[in-house]
Amino acid sequence: MPRNRQSEDSILRKISDSFRSASWNAGQSVALGIGDDAALFRPKRGHETILTCDWFLEGTHFFRDKHPADAVGWKCLARALSDVAAMGATPRCFLLSLALPETHTGPWLDQFLGGLRRASRRFQCVLAGGDTTRRNEILINVTVVGEVRVGYAVLRSGAREGDIIYVSGKLGEAELGLQMLQREKALASKKNPLLRKHLYPEPRLELGRWLAEKKIATAMIDLSDGLSSDLAKVCTASGVGALLDHDQFPAVRVPHSLRRKVNESLQLALHGGDDYELLFTAPPGKLPSLPRKRKNLRIYPIGVVTSGPNMVYYDPGNPFILRPRGWDPFRKKL
Amino acid sequence: MPRNRQSEDSILRKISDSFRSASWNAGQSVALGIGDDAALFRPKRGHETILTCDWFLEGTHFFRDKHPADAVGWKCLARALSDVAAMGATPRCFLLSLALPETHTGPWLDQFLGGLRRASRRFQCVLAGGDTTRRNEILINVTVVGEVRVGYAVLRSGAREGDIIYVSGKLGEAELGLQMLQREKALASKKNPLLRKHLYPEPRLELGRWLAEKKIATAMIDLSDGLSSDLAKVCTASGVGALLDHDQFPAVRVPHSLRRKVNESLQLALHGGDDYELLFTAPPGKLPSLPRKRKNLRIYPIGVVTSGPNMVYYDPGNPFILRPRGWDPFRKKL
Repeated sequence: MPRNRQSEDSILRKISDSFRSASWNAGQSVALGIGDDAALFRPKRGHETILTCDWFLEGTHFFRDKHPADAVGWKCLARALSDVAAMGATPRCFLLSLALPETHTGPWLDQFLGGLRRASRRFQCVLAGGDTTRRNEILINVTVVGEVRVGYAVLRSGAREGDIIYVSGKLGEAELGLQMLQREKALASKKNPLLRKHLYPEPRLELGRWLAEKKIATAMIDLSDGLSSDLAKVCTASGVGALLDHDQFPAVRVPHSLRRKVNESLQLALHGGDDYELLFTAPPGKLPSLPRKRKNLRIYPIGVVTSGPNMVYYDPGNPFILRPRGWDPFRKKL
Repeated sequence: MPRNRQSEDSILRKISDSFRSASWNAGQSVALGIGDDAALFRPKRGHETILTCDWFLEGTHFFRDKHPADAVGWKCLARALSDVAAMGATPRCFLLSLALPETHTGPWLDQFLGGLRRASRRFQCVLAGGDTTRRNEILINVTVVGEVRVGYAVLRSGAREGDIIYVSGKLGEAELGLQMLQREKALASKKNPLLRKHLYPEPRLELGRWLAEKKIATAMIDLSDGLSSDLAKVCTASGVGALLDHDQFPAVRVPHSLRRKVNESLQLALHGGDDYELLFTAPPGKLPSLPRKRKNLRIYPIGVVTSGPNMVYYDPGNPFILRPRGWDPFRKKL
């Protein structure tokens, strides 16, 4: 392997050059980007600043030999943006902390930056700064900064008894996509929609913003760890319970060739992670304002908020109490 | 070793409980802290938001068996705050991304949070959110958010020919402290000032803010990688050179018992990292406004800005061109 001894400066230059063409930021929020001690951005009047950060670590959240570099770049930003969507806010800029082996400062870094740049442009979120260092493993941390009108952020704590629970999209697709990736050697099927959902998730920024601006949602969260874990967080924060309705449950359809056990579809939908769909609650009175689709994205009612404390999955033949069994790095062995 | 299986929730609770007593934030900037999808903070009118993030990684920036946990907690925040100081800004809040082995979620985490809380209170920077995950190695990333009046941030690019170059404090002390730590088995000498400078650095927030508010500094940077590397960044950004004056150079005094080679003191001062002092430039006309000390912190003139392009260290007996030889993770083998 050719030696490719880079200095930190040259890597920073590569990163900032890669984002220089982001002309759609011209004259906008970021007053000072990469290259000084810190970045500066100009907050809009009457808005609160929203802050969120996310680990994206090789071996924990992705695998060097399984995940294409451009998907790593896209996803590290997309998943942080999903938290912004879940508050009903608008992203403005992000900081990238990147630790890399020297072997990955060439083509891998270029492809990574390509995916990151596509996500950055797509979701109008400018690279404003960051930190790089050398490391045997690829470590990524992304901080996203955004804004929301004062009083309009949607928290986890606002769900009330009688509210209807909704999700966007089908559940369990990304987990099934991950299983496909793990089983298959080649990445030939990058166009497969399940695989795409795992590799290139779409943060539901438009939906989140709309629900917040119209004051429709009483509580909201993004589905990153899995429905059972994420709904539990809303229930705990709001001091409520939930009753999920089997009849309406938008579980992923598992293709016959991938099916391994009974009920696989439901298990994936209840506990599978990485969907980055939105789960929100809204009073029944808001039903008329809620279309079945919003800009081509299906919205499914999945149950109602109860006085609690349990989450119950109501399948008439087999009702059960739903426990959080989604992704938890401190419970799961890797 | 006792099994101590924690879930991510319980670790988040430990962290947020640890910072609950931060009552000095009451009613201030952070409108929503830990526990939702993202944090919210209220920017002050007429101010820009400043953003910076910093890796602090086991094996790269600290060692599990050498560095006390409370020093890891203090320093991960202090070094990120140093970037805020270098812009002349005021910190408001920070996000903590923490990856830990399960074995470190007990006493180690408590001590780490103790050091972090002390730094947080001391520098009035509130914990606003973060992300935790499990990992074999201790990985830390800190994002600090602050603010500065529009037009008052001090950049690296403002140095002009004829400006005087200043630094706060003595140079090379932290590097010498690190050497002491590496040579000594026990941590008995935690009160040693050199060791303290390495373990518990003090970001020069007061000085930075004062220099910015009074419009004294034309350019500023914090000394994290070492003078030779950090001054080079100012020179590059400003398109200038520098002439350093041997006679006035505030190099660390190396105690006789620690001395190993000739010129060690100067080498430490020129290339040693982690001092977190400020380097700034100011026109000669500002000399009368600059005291020798500011709130007990010495300020040393160390040279002048030249038309460039080189940095020259002027020792009448042995003048030489100074090259950046401070810390660079992509050049140094660990």
